[in-house]
Amino acid sequence: MLDKILNEYKVILASQSPRRRDIFDMLGINYHTQSSNIAEPITGEDPALQAMRNARNKAEAVFATGDGQSVIVSADTIVVLEGRILGKPESAEQAYGYLSDLRANTHTVITGICMMGRKGQKCGYEQTQVSFAPLTDEEIRDYIKTQEPADKAGAYGIQGFGSQFITRIEGCYFNVMGFPVRRFYEITKDLIARGLL
Amino acid sequence: MLDKILNEYKVILASQSPRRRDIFDMLGINYHTQSSNIAEPITGEDPALQAMRNARNKAEAVFATGDGQSVIVSADTIVVLEGRILGKPESAEQAYGYLSDLRANTHTVITGICMMGRKGQKCGYEQTQVSFAPLTDEEIRDYIKTQEPADKAGAYGIQGFGSQFITRIEGCYFNVMGFPVRRFYEITKDLIARGLL
Repeated sequence: MLDKILNEYKVILASQSPRRRDIFDMLGINYHTQSSNIAEPITGEDPALQAMRNARNKAEAVFATGDGQSVIVSADTIVVLEGRILGKPESAEQAYGYLSDLRANTHTVITGICMMGRKGQKCGYEQTQVSFAPLTDEEIRDYIKTQEPADKAGAYGIQGFGSQFITRIEGCYFNVMGFPVRRFYEITKDLIARGLL
Repeated sequence: MLDKILNEYKVILASQSPRRRDIFDMLGINYHTQSSNIAEPITGEDPALQAMRNARNKAEAVFATGDGQSVIVSADTIVVLEGRILGKPESAEQAYGYLSDLRANTHTVITGICMMGRKGQKCGYEQTQVSFAPLTDEEIRDYIKTQEPADKAGAYGIQGFGSQFITRIEGCYFNVMGFPVRRFYEITKDLIARGLL
């Protein structure tokens, strides 16, 4: 299990996301956090490649500041609706627009992750389909008032008030929260098996 | 949203499950809990009918002790693998057997819920497909040592250490945790629309 493997190392989570910290706590992993201050540009390329590149940039930025003895873990989450990437909303109006587009529709959440050990690194990604119920305008307005949409890609959180708007998902739930737990475990075991951690 | 509707009422959650309390907290619902001490017999009938009947029995038991002015919410979660119901494991050996059967396989989690207002009630259920990774014997033994399997139907929790064993789900995540949030919201709105709450 992840705690058994990783608690032999000094682990740095290269993220300030409270959701990712919650997931690491849930898994019993001892870790520090360090912010990378890396931009997450939205470009025209494939969303999975963008998410992995952003994650790798974050891990490399943190690696460059350290002593090379830590295990660094980073992630980048992207919300894609009908080919369009929805970032963190810059205003209540933009949050309203995003949620209007997401309602009664299915979108994709992609999280790229990167794990960097002393002797090598591995990146990967996970994608999950998320279906929203048909929301009323009043529901969207009430939801924006909770402040939950403000700091989240796509203007919603699946693990809070937003849970009541989601009818079903297909794939990894934790990926939608911002960190694909099973994929992370597989990458960890692969790096261990190849002696790279 | 659920908090806006339900915080006009005195709400009783007829469950002692920490997971269900976490979900009510997440939704911002003010509530009390009251245990029903109702048996959850496993019978030969359809699992969805069993889950709904168990939930209704819990709600009615709590309703009978009250003043008839509260809104009572109850749930019962059943894990079904290839037609067989897996209850809470009675020993580490039984937990080991359940997890051996679940690995590299897909099962169904069904939660029946019942909501009882002053003037009427409504029950429903939700089902989610859950796919497990192929686990090693060592992983199963390590997982049982965490104590997480002990008090959970099917001997696992999706929201804890168990998260690293689950490759994908299809349906409502919170249903697997023990309480189908979206279904609950739909039932609440239906009871309100019919003037039964």
